[in-house]
Amino acid sequence: MSNGDRPLRMGMVGGGRDAFIGEIHRAAARLDGQIDFVAGALSSSPEKSVESGRDLRLAEDRCYPTWEAMLEGELARPEGDRIDFISIVTPNHVHYPVARAFVDAGIHVVCDKPMTLTVDEAEDLASLVKQRGVVFCVTYNYSGYPMVRQARHLVRGGAIGDVRKVIVEYNQGWLATELESTGQKQADWRTDPARAGAGGAIGDIGSHAEQLISNVTGLHIDTLCADLSSFIEGRRLDDDANVLLRFDGGARGILTASQVCIGSLNDLRLRVWGTTGGLTWHQEEPNSLRLTSLDGPDTVHHRGGLGLCEEAVNGTRLPGGHPEAFIEAFANVYLGAVRAMREGRDDGAAFCYPDVQEGLRGMRFIDAVVRSSKEDCAWASPAGQEA
Amino acid sequence: MSNGDRPLRMGMVGGGRDAFIGEIHRAAARLDGQIDFVAGALSSSPEKSVESGRDLRLAEDRCYPTWEAMLEGELARPEGDRIDFISIVTPNHVHYPVARAFVDAGIHVVCDKPMTLTVDEAEDLASLVKQRGVVFCVTYNYSGYPMVRQARHLVRGGAIGDVRKVIVEYNQGWLATELESTGQKQADWRTDPARAGAGGAIGDIGSHAEQLISNVTGLHIDTLCADLSSFIEGRRLDDDANVLLRFDGGARGILTASQVCIGSLNDLRLRVWGTTGGLTWHQEEPNSLRLTSLDGPDTVHHRGGLGLCEEAVNGTRLPGGHPEAFIEAFANVYLGAVRAMREGRDDGAAFCYPDVQEGLRGMRFIDAVVRSSKEDCAWASPAGQEA
Amino acid sequence: MSNGDRPLRMGMVGGGRDAFIGEIHRAAARLDGQIDFVAGALSSSPEKSVESGRDLRLAEDRCYPTWEAMLEGELARPEGDRIDFISIVTPNHVHYPVARAFVDAGIHVVCDKPMTLTVDEAEDLASLVKQRGVVFCVTYNYSGYPMVRQARHLVRGGAIGDVRKVIVEYNQGWLATELESTGQKQADWRTDPARAGAGGAIGDIGSHAEQLISNVTGLHIDTLCADLSSFIEGRRLDDDANVLLRFDGGARGILTASQVCIGSLNDLRLRVWGTTGGLTWHQEEPNSLRLTSLDGPDTVHHRGGLGLCEEAVNGTRLPGGHPEAFIEAFANVYLGAVRAMREGRDDGAAFCYPDVQEGLRGMRFIDAVVRSSKEDCAWASPAGQEA
Amino acid sequence: MSNGDRPLRMGMVGGGRDAFIGEIHRAAARLDGQIDFVAGALSSSPEKSVESGRDLRLAEDRCYPTWEAMLEGELARPEGDRIDFISIVTPNHVHYPVARAFVDAGIHVVCDKPMTLTVDEAEDLASLVKQRGVVFCVTYNYSGYPMVRQARHLVRGGAIGDVRKVIVEYNQGWLATELESTGQKQADWRTDPARAGAGGAIGDIGSHAEQLISNVTGLHIDTLCADLSSFIEGRRLDDDANVLLRFDGGARGILTASQVCIGSLNDLRLRVWGTTGGLTWHQEEPNSLRLTSLDGPDTVHHRGGLGLCEEAVNGTRLPGGHPEAFIEAFANVYLGAVRAMREGRDDGAAFCYPDVQEGLRGMRFIDAVVRSSKEDCAWASPAGQEA
Repeated sequence: MSNGDRPLRMGMVGGGRDAFIGEIHRAAARLDGQIDFVAGALSSSPEKSVESGRDLRLAEDRCYPTWEAMLEGELARPEGDRIDFISIVTPNHVHYPVARAFVDAGIHVVCDKPMTLTVDEAEDLASLVKQRGVVFCVTYNYSGYPMVRQARHLVRGGAIGDVRKVIVEYNQGWLATELESTGQKQADWRTDPARAGAGGAIGDIGSHAEQLISNVTGLHIDTLCADLSSFIEGRRLDDDANVLLRFDGGARGILTASQVCIGSLNDLRLRVWGTTGGLTWHQEEPNSLRLTSLDGPDTVHHRGGLGLCEEAVNGTRLPGGHPEAFIEAFANVYLGAVRAMREGRDDGAAFCYPDVQEGLRGMRFIDAVVRSSKEDCAWASPAGQEA
Repeated sequence: MSNGDRPLRMGMVGGGRDAFIGEIHRAAARLDGQIDFVAGALSSSPEKSVESGRDLRLAEDRCYPTWEAMLEGELARPEGDRIDFISIVTPNHVHYPVARAFVDAGIHVVCDKPMTLTVDEAEDLASLVKQRGVVFCVTYNYSGYPMVRQARHLVRGGAIGDVRKVIVEYNQGWLATELESTGQKQADWRTDPARAGAGGAIGDIGSHAEQLISNVTGLHIDTLCADLSSFIEGRRLDDDANVLLRFDGGARGILTASQVCIGSLNDLRLRVWGTTGGLTWHQEEPNSLRLTSLDGPDTVHHRGGLGLCEEAVNGTRLPGGHPEAFIEAFANVYLGAVRAMREGRDDGAAFCYPDVQEGLRGMRFIDAVVRSSKEDCAWASPAGQEA
Repeated sequence: MSNGDRPLRMGMVGGGRDAFIGEIHRAAARLDGQIDFVAGALSSSPEKSVESGRDLRLAEDRCYPTWEAMLEGELARPEGDRIDFISIVTPNHVHYPVARAFVDAGIHVVCDKPMTLTVDEAEDLASLVKQRGVVFCVTYNYSGYPMVRQARHLVRGGAIGDVRKVIVEYNQGWLATELESTGQKQADWRTDPARAGAGGAIGDIGSHAEQLISNVTGLHIDTLCADLSSFIEGRRLDDDANVLLRFDGGARGILTASQVCIGSLNDLRLRVWGTTGGLTWHQEEPNSLRLTSLDGPDTVHHRGGLGLCEEAVNGTRLPGGHPEAFIEAFANVYLGAVRAMREGRDDGAAFCYPDVQEGLRGMRFIDAVVRSSKEDCAWASPAGQEA
Repeated sequence: MSNGDRPLRMGMVGGGRDAFIGEIHRAAARLDGQIDFVAGALSSSPEKSVESGRDLRLAEDRCYPTWEAMLEGELARPEGDRIDFISIVTPNHVHYPVARAFVDAGIHVVCDKPMTLTVDEAEDLASLVKQRGVVFCVTYNYSGYPMVRQARHLVRGGAIGDVRKVIVEYNQGWLATELESTGQKQADWRTDPARAGAGGAIGDIGSHAEQLISNVTGLHIDTLCADLSSFIEGRRLDDDANVLLRFDGGARGILTASQVCIGSLNDLRLRVWGTTGGLTWHQEEPNSLRLTSLDGPDTVHHRGGLGLCEEAVNGTRLPGGHPEAFIEAFANVYLGAVRAMREGRDDGAAFCYPDVQEGLRGMRFIDAVVRSSKEDCAWASPAGQEA
């Protein structure tokens, strides 16, 4: 940060005691010293919300019982003391009402994905964001990896020619048993349509896979054909998704996402091939990127190495070989949003963060997958207008 | 081979000058000293056929101009001197007439895959094989790898529970350009429906992928939904295939096969997950097999290691760490067929070779894929009766 | 941190503008929200020191021009406002005077490695630390990786039997050219005996390799035989070290460290074999640990997986597959020291941080290597008494 | 082989029932159809020798009871029917007398490594080979891998600049227990100085490691410092070797070889770094070669890929991705010797096989290692004149 820039003040909704993702957001926000976490409505239980705030050493008057109280309380503070943005890390069904209210109040928002429960909510939100002119960032965190940025740079710069084929996969195994019946909190809400939305695995992780394709290649899915399954008796949402993809311009692809692949931890992989080359990236070994070409040996680029694009370099804190990982990538998404907030300009492409249009596109993707699967894999289109 | 067993005498159809796969078959046949290559009709050109035989030092009277001449010539020899079997390594369209004639004459056959051009041909052949009682082996060579045999042993023995999800992929890149217009012989016939059949990549390599699933898991594809593409202007067959799979019993899967994935050499991979574990195998690093389970660390088995199944041990020539590869796996398929010929019993399961029923199933698979793709990815079934 | 525990206040010596390692220490200290960075003497230039403090938004009266001023200034503050500890991240020759002064004043110290310039300094420091009873932590950061902790747990618990053979290597390539003559700051002081000490690569990275062996196995080097080289004309310290190791109890080993291995980034690897098994760990892919045994397949443990030891679990922030890396491991070392400071007990083993005795042992190791190399690889012993 | 070339006739000494390496030699010799195995003295027991010959379907009059009988018998045959060469695959102590006798009789020899028991024997043999003008090939089989040939081509062509550092390692684990006391035949003779020679692991596998360095880099070891250990009570030869290397011209290196590294199967790895780049090759994944450079990303070459040297291409039978392995590399060594025999010219460099000078150099290396180790790791030189 340039000398004199003050850290931005962050409020958080969700992420209290027992939550999983909240501490990751806070660690990412803390990593670069550009964000101060100052206020929270950290749980749907008012009591737990306040206690969680105290746990995290928030000022007593900023340990809010509810997000509505936080919104009111913060607006009542002088501008120079008020939160600059909130981070929404609740289960999915809470994203929309909270995001809508803060956007409407002119407060920047960082929101977990999938952005909303429904396409309608997403369209409404996107439209409001445009109206209010706030920065809205959706934490598709994997796009924050430097080597994903490099992949994007290469593909969009023509390094592999015109894209023909994409394989993206996101394999996990943690829902291979009926974990939701054991009281495990993550499994509980993520398998509940009322809180997770229409997609199970396809919403939780398939949406990351879709965003990774879109982010790296810039391709739009024209139509898709999806087969969702649920392998656990009584589970109400899909835990396995297999999807055929057809892109505008003729490229084809496969997206597979599953939470019943035992032994797969967080196995997100992207492969893209074009008319003159190809590339491979793997989230569990995120510091390198492999390229192939028609007429030479494979090349392997390393984070921190020579000749990488500006966005990859900017997203790098440590020299090559000193591995960076999940938290750093997550922090890069926050950093992008913070830069946009400092500039007062909501432009995901310019500042390297996934914006509300990406969140909307993600909801349309999930919706199309669910529609296709319900109609026995009929082709369905996720297309729509920018809000 | 046990003391006193003589090597079997092999004739070959196809595989002459300029051919690719013929020398691989001969090397595989030669590897264990159990097969003598004694007769050949090695080309569709009578002249080249004879010359190719001389190149390979066949006896002059066994350098046949045509396969018809070879059949006649060999039948005219005394039984103790006659070929025991032929190996058919021609382009696909020649498989059926040659195989039919030799089977009909009571001569064992080893035949490349896909077995025929059409399902009808395959059914007829399967029926004739049953009638004549000869050994008929289809060289789905990848099933000869010891660690594939171990995978089969484990999955069929319940080591990963009931199978839920399968991902099989076979990526190549050699047809990423219009190679067929350069006179390259392999590209020429493999992109010609009259010689290759209805499937391009799906027939040439997708059929291996299908057989690998079937071989390892024993699952039957109930129905499939396929999207075939051709990325080269004017190419008459698919060079890219993406297929959703549904198996009897409820497992789901993905099969992808492509010949336009630049940098992919012969990248055949199988992943299978069940209710209690999973496994991964990769053809380009074929000497190990990775297993996952619900309740422990991953394990990695090595060819030549402890605790492997009998079929894996029997298919192993060298100690662990002394890598075996493509030729040895190919030779294992031949060895299985040779054992069956010695015993006079056509039983692929007992002797570990892919038999005519596997060849037939492969043709039904290709046919279903092509049908599905033509009908805009409507579900299609590859099912049929055993011949 | 338990509810009510306040973050500890950290001062820093070194790490100002242009420094490399300072920001890593600060990020590590910041990661878990348990440490507030409040004071600094960040450069040997008083002016730059103060400016660097302002860059980092320290309070004006805590942007000290020199470490002496910081010591005086902090001691003058009320105890409840004073720094709890300092972190020393200067070139090596500054470690000792600063550390000595703060320890003497009863202030806890976190100090970069190698701990001092000479064995004498290290012995004096170790002795003073014991007298004053402060916590003294040496940032051998690689021992903070969860899978290194698991390796230690396994080896010390007998999982591979009695150790026979150790191979540790630390390959880098950044000094393969005469970087010191280009004005690159890191290369400049690290190749200068007056500031780096008697060891070049052996001191800078070989010391990490030695600590990794010691940390994981608990073995003491009885004697060693070292061959140091310098491949750049005029370079005054070694840039390549090859060392034979003999341990108490009969184990043997090899340590190799180099900064001229082009393409090696930060390639620290440890392999240990005992009477019943072996293990492999690689810093560039730090989230897994491979084990071998006499009588079964290899096993691969993953950070975040089942059955890991308490110290590995405690050092883990994210679920398996969400990779953690360098910063988290570094932060784990800080966390251990912070826990010790909270308890007021300097016990590296109990709180999982490398203590002053490890720093002393490291200096004796470097000294023995340099002696051996000077005497044409005569055996030399790094042994000594605990201070 | 060019049209009209007849296969060469091979006799074999050793390699009968229960032997390990004999069948590997025969399979390698058989692979390309250029060698006919026609005569054998396959065991030190005359009875077993004859029976082993019958097992392998040799003509009755060429199932010799002893190698002396074979030499006499073959010399008595007309030249056009006589063996062209013998392959010696006995325990080490038999190499010299057999090789000497056949060389003396003007018969070409392929001999396993290490070439003899002593340096004196090796010098005598080298001198006699020169006199008699026969082809003498030592089966350092790892140099037959195409990607080793490519590595050699690159290093010798300056692709990594002047070599500075070499790390070669050969780790096995099969002698981690007292296998020799169980009657295991390989362990029995390989741990017996009378049959194996002065080196245990260093002779059996360390010699391969030394040859790999020499073959790829062309460097000569000027002096070495070796630490040999035996970890099994009562074992008479080393099972672990750690060696510091200094090369003519200033390069430094490490060679480590062990047979007590549990879980290591046949883990031979070579890394070489020069002034402008480096390379890595691993025998267990032999089909690729990784290169690094000062100023670009890493590159990975694949066997069968574009731009490989003539020797690599000549040693390749299958397209890339269709893995080749141990047997093919072994066969490449035989092919080189066969080419030399056809040309009647003993020139290892020209025909790509390890010749008697390499065998002699290997014996001097083992001798120097043993001397150094006995003198408590004093520097020892393996140097000597070409015979």
